[in-house]
Amino acid sequence: MSEAEDTREEPRRPDQDKLQQHLKEVQVLLARHRRVENLVHRQDMPRHDLVEGLLHKQHLAELQTRLDGYHSADVAHILESLPLDERLLVWDMVKADRDGDILLEVSDAVRESLIETMAHHELSAAVAQLDADELADLAPDLPTEVMEDVFRNLDTEERLQLRSAMSYDENAVGALMDFDMVTVRADVSLEAVLRYLRRFDELPDQTDQIFVIDREDHLHGVLPVNTLLIKDPDTLVESVMRRDALTLRPEDKADTAAQAFERYDLVSAPVVSADDKLIGRVTVDAVVDYIREEAEAEQLAQAGLREEEDIFASVWDSVRNRWQWLALNLVTAIIASRVIGAFEGTIEKLVALAALMPIVAGIGGNSGNQTITMIVRAIALGQIGEESQRRLYRKELKVALINGVVWGGLLGIIAWWLYADWRLGLVMTSAMTLNLAVAALIGVMIPMTLQKLGRDPAIGGSVMVTAVTDSGGFFIFLGLATLFLL
Amino acid sequence: MSEAEDTREEPRRPDQDKLQQHLKEVQVLLARHRRVENLVHRQDMPRHDLVEGLLHKQHLAELQTRLDGYHSADVAHILESLPLDERLLVWDMVKADRDGDILLEVSDAVRESLIETMAHHELSAAVAQLDADELADLAPDLPTEVMEDVFRNLDTEERLQLRSAMSYDENAVGALMDFDMVTVRADVSLEAVLRYLRRFDELPDQTDQIFVIDREDHLHGVLPVNTLLIKDPDTLVESVMRRDALTLRPEDKADTAAQAFERYDLVSAPVVSADDKLIGRVTVDAVVDYIREEAEAEQLAQAGLREEEDIFASVWDSVRNRWQWLALNLVTAIIASRVIGAFEGTIEKLVALAALMPIVAGIGGNSGNQTITMIVRAIALGQIGEESQRRLYRKELKVALINGVVWGGLLGIIAWWLYADWRLGLVMTSAMTLNLAVAALIGVMIPMTLQKLGRDPAIGGSVMVTAVTDSGGFFIFLGLATLFLL
Repeated sequence: MSEAEDTREEPRRPDQDKLQQHLKEVQVLLARHRRVENLVHRQDMPRHDLVEGLLHKQHLAELQTRLDGYHSADVAHILESLPLDERLLVWDMVKADRDGDILLEVSDAVRESLIETMAHHELSAAVAQLDADELADLAPDLPTEVMEDVFRNLDTEERLQLRSAMSYDENAVGALMDFDMVTVRADVSLEAVLRYLRRFDELPDQTDQIFVIDREDHLHGVLPVNTLLIKDPDTLVESVMRRDALTLRPEDKADTAAQAFERYDLVSAPVVSADDKLIGRVTVDAVVDYIREEAEAEQLAQAGLREEEDIFASVWDSVRNRWQWLALNLVTAIIASRVIGAFEGTIEKLVALAALMPIVAGIGGNSGNQTITMIVRAIALGQIGEESQRRLYRKELKVALINGVVWGGLLGIIAWWLYADWRLGLVMTSAMTLNLAVAALIGVMIPMTLQKLGRDPAIGGSVMVTAVTDSGGFFIFLGLATLFLL
Repeated sequence: MSEAEDTREEPRRPDQDKLQQHLKEVQVLLARHRRVENLVHRQDMPRHDLVEGLLHKQHLAELQTRLDGYHSADVAHILESLPLDERLLVWDMVKADRDGDILLEVSDAVRESLIETMAHHELSAAVAQLDADELADLAPDLPTEVMEDVFRNLDTEERLQLRSAMSYDENAVGALMDFDMVTVRADVSLEAVLRYLRRFDELPDQTDQIFVIDREDHLHGVLPVNTLLIKDPDTLVESVMRRDALTLRPEDKADTAAQAFERYDLVSAPVVSADDKLIGRVTVDAVVDYIREEAEAEQLAQAGLREEEDIFASVWDSVRNRWQWLALNLVTAIIASRVIGAFEGTIEKLVALAALMPIVAGIGGNSGNQTITMIVRAIALGQIGEESQRRLYRKELKVALINGVVWGGLLGIIAWWLYADWRLGLVMTSAMTLNLAVAALIGVMIPMTLQKLGRDPAIGGSVMVTAVTDSGGFFIFLGLATLFLL
């Protein structure tokens, strides 16, 4: 990552407050600037022109100075926290040589809004300083002409790297990979390695190990920097290098790599081809970003938000981002409504059922979602084998029965008390227990089935569970009532 | 972390499959072992004793060999994936000197199940090799007597470290901190630093920078290892050290620190006291664990699971883990039910309302949850200032109105068509639009308010939104129906 070259202020304290303060300073300056602009627009007096022009310039100059002092990641944060018009004003004031870095840092939605306003030649210039792996990250958002420009300006090696980085799925290790590596041969002394390193102006960030390769780029081992530092300089690399270090393939799942980083506390890992040639490395900062993004995407997906939504997105973008989920839920709600419709005769005779039925459906949904959340997590951690499935069904069913008797029993008593009908109470208790059992079964079955079908069990499962417990709950409750109360 | 000392196999490939294979091997051996045991129990023939005893021992010996070959993190994974009886069998076979490391790696629920079976002296021995920061992590799960033992066996410095590590909130930087640091003085040459480092047997993991302190432990700067490697050995530390490196305080929020690591791509950061004395460091592996755990905890909390639930937990533990959530939802469901109860007269006259009302409530809930999810995320990223609040309310209201007209209109038509009553359709559309507006307001208001009250907006907000949109939806729909349809 190019933070290495970013010599601007990195805050000495990580205070969220500090960041908020940056943001506020910018907002104050923007507000002043706007006020002056309004003045200029309203009273078009030539006399004032000069003064206001100066004021105007002064605010912008101050803003510029502030922005220049902030770390790229902080500028990105400020851009994300401003509404579109102010965002673009600030974006215009950022020094062109930082554009590329900042584009890398902002969220997808904000990036889109920034790129839209840039001319092709500006974009080409902005991304010209980026590394191949960073270019690959931006590539999907860049216009074709800009990408052509970019390719034209790369040397052969970088072109190959860019092509290779762009060829991988975004959930593959290839997409996390960078090409900033330090490599040495196995048959040299540590002293020679130390001398070699002193020729660098700086080492790539996150260089915790040096890769040991032969003439054909085959990876033979890794030399941890910590080993390099503590061993006698006369030692040969091959006698202290680690041969058992974890290696990744570009087509490995990013998630598997992330788990390995977490499990074995890695800072970097080499990426090799099928014939063991070193092609890149993955560093922990890319992994941290990946973990955070995945967790966020999952949370958003659980509420049916297709992508991260820029809070200042247009109303129209928001509607588009959310409509599929609403449509899906509408369908399941209509189905549940038709289930109720089939029992209208029953409800007409005993209107208390209408008031009680949402409880049965709702608690079933809550309980089913608890089960599926737990199972999805266990699947993600690889804890569920063939053998454990039946055990899980049994356990969840038992939990459901206990809850059914306890909570269903309580509700039965409440229903009895409210409507002075012990049979209604009994139907309530039985329906609750049955629907909780349905919720338990479906809460285990759906994620297991999704996984067997090769789909992500974390996505969509919750809607299905709720659909089943809603329609199922209404059917069970109203069905039992029809059988026993009429 | 003590992985540094763990010289056992670290898999060369991060395959999830490999992990699963480990697990399967263990399971097969366990199954064989169980079969032999059953034989021994059933046919108590002295003749067979010897053979079966041997078989028995052979399987266990093989299991032992396998386990010895696995990385501690992998053994932890196997323990987590086995039901209690088999888990304890495997736990017994793990070499005692790895117990501490493995206890650190397993999840809280599994850790509890393992600690329960250990005698005090075993536990004391197991944790004796751990560092102060690791001991602090385990401390809440250890019996008081064991902790007393532990304290007795520590030297004064370690005792101070342990006390300090235990004194911090688990969401503070102090809880992520370790004490494995390399420090040097500012007025020595890099050559001297290199010589000093060669006296170490090994450097602490994740040592990407050396801390530069004075005699009183005040932090003056950091010397990145990468700088140490590339600069002329005759240079003085003070002339190349970074003075602007990010420093943490033990009482900083862990979340703020995690964001700083993510933003500035850090591998480690020094932790200093208020008077700038170096007291520890935070490393990226602790941050990665923290991020992952937080994301998981949030997901679990969203389904009302109080803590991570071991999938093989007893039925009783599961019931206990989930009951509060169910109880809370039961209360909100009963309130909603009473809202319906108030309109029983209306429903009696127009039973179609009973079938349609869950749609209004349900879609309101979905929409409100989309809003709150988006807002909670923006709050977590610090993107919402005072100024943006009104903008957000306006935007969410507009989105709600569009959705109300579109989806509410569609549902109105469906209701009209189903029940041949255009006035019912109109009530349906109006109720949907109003409830979506309520959902939008409440979806912005609840997380904002929770934040102002200093509570975590991610927790509990969703239940509240659903409670309001359920009761509110029923009230609006049935109320409008009572006013206009009777």
